[in-house]
Amino acid sequence: MLIARVVGSVVSTQKNGKLEGAKLLLAQPLDLDGKDRGPAVIAIDAVDAGVGDRVLLVLDGKAAMLALDRGLAGVDAAIVGVVDAVDIPGEPARR
Amino acid sequence: MLIARVVGSVVSTQKNGKLEGAKLLLAQPLDLDGKDRGPAVIAIDAVDAGVGDRVLLVLDGKAAMLALDRGLAGVDAAIVGVVDAVDIPGEPARR
Amino acid sequence: MLIARVVGSVVSTQKNGKLEGAKLLLAQPLDLDGKDRGPAVIAIDAVDAGVGDRVLLVLDGKAAMLALDRGLAGVDAAIVGVVDAVDIPGEPARR
Amino acid sequence: MLIARVVGSVVSTQKNGKLEGAKLLLAQPLDLDGKDRGPAVIAIDAVDAGVGDRVLLVLDGKAAMLALDRGLAGVDAAIVGVVDAVDIPGEPARR
Amino acid sequence: MLIARVVGSVVSTQKNGKLEGAKLLLAQPLDLDGKDRGPAVIAIDAVDAGVGDRVLLVLDGKAAMLALDRGLAGVDAAIVGVVDAVDIPGEPARR
Repeated sequence: MLIARVVGSVVSTQKNGKLEGAKLLLAQPLDLDGKDRGPAVIAIDAVDAGVGDRVLLVLDGKAAMLALDRGLAGVDAAIVGVVDAVDIPGEPARR
Repeated sequence: MLIARVVGSVVSTQKNGKLEGAKLLLAQPLDLDGKDRGPAVIAIDAVDAGVGDRVLLVLDGKAAMLALDRGLAGVDAAIVGVVDAVDIPGEPARR
Repeated sequence: MLIARVVGSVVSTQKNGKLEGAKLLLAQPLDLDGKDRGPAVIAIDAVDAGVGDRVLLVLDGKAAMLALDRGLAGVDAAIVGVVDAVDIPGEPARR
Repeated sequence: MLIARVVGSVVSTQKNGKLEGAKLLLAQPLDLDGKDRGPAVIAIDAVDAGVGDRVLLVLDGKAAMLALDRGLAGVDAAIVGVVDAVDIPGEPARR
Repeated sequence: MLIARVVGSVVSTQKNGKLEGAKLLLAQPLDLDGKDRGPAVIAIDAVDAGVGDRVLLVLDGKAAMLALDRGLAGVDAAIVGVVDAVDIPGEPARR
């Protein structure tokens, strides 16, 4: 998984039936200093995250779909956790 | 998923039987400002998208195949939604 | 999928039993102008393609294996179609 | 798999139920000279590794989940071994 | 698959039970001229390859695990063939 920041959301009315009811969030991967790292991706929320949260981002179809509620499919990315802190021994905790 | 623009289509008469009836679209991934991001890919349409649409692009074999109609296989990318808007708090909606 | 050119083939006598009978082709991904894009990969032929053909290249284990004949496995790339034309509205067809 | 160094851990209280009980480690991929190679990722510990260990890092959803205890899912990376030595003939063993 | 050179091996005593008995090889991907291409990876041997061999390297969890003996799992890369020659029409065979 990558650490990412939820920076927005995506609205899609005309979508595949397997995605009905999915909450589409825009997640920007971060490096350990909290800076943007590569492009933002669209991920399905599997943990009730919101804009501004620092989260755990899964990038794998099978893993993402297993984390989601029964009935959702056709998905290759999911948000599976909200990060409280990153602890690196010898450095202050990054909350 | 990535946000992409449908920029064209691909014609293939001699193709694997698992792909019979698939609509092959050429999808160009975009960044948040709407500019091209990396190379275009061929994706199967799973939402009745057309050239010019801004779409949700899935890049994972299992996820793409689950989004498609029964009988299609051998596919690693699918278009699963048409994007109405990308909402980033503090910025105007990008429609 | 990516568009690629078949540029050669690979001979391997000592190979895993799951690959017996597989035709190993060397596929060079192309950009929309027909130029090389990134490194060549080894893919299993699933559509009776030959050297010189412009093809559809699948890069995903599950998708590649589903496109192949029963009994082949241990494969992460397959050639699933021969491209007749790439149609981009407003530009001449690229055949 | 890649060789990586465990450099820290991640605390996440609000997480998907499929991740309950998972130990989230921060793994930094290394090159053969022991230098950082690309960005750090979050991986689930499947071998009782700790901070400072040089480890084998799996980056694939299905592979990572198969290595973990029954009940964990929604995971795309796992630590599956502690590296004792890398042996390259003609060079001193890298322990 | 990629063409790679086996350049060494990895010793791991403390490893996940799904990897017991696996032979861990260090594989360096090559370009068509035989030069290093990107970083080396750790792959499980599924074809009795040895150091110095030019091999076919599979990079996909499901594909790699299907090529291995029953009982091995938690693996995202495997060596599935030894390359005898790469034939590119119009060029001398690269053995």
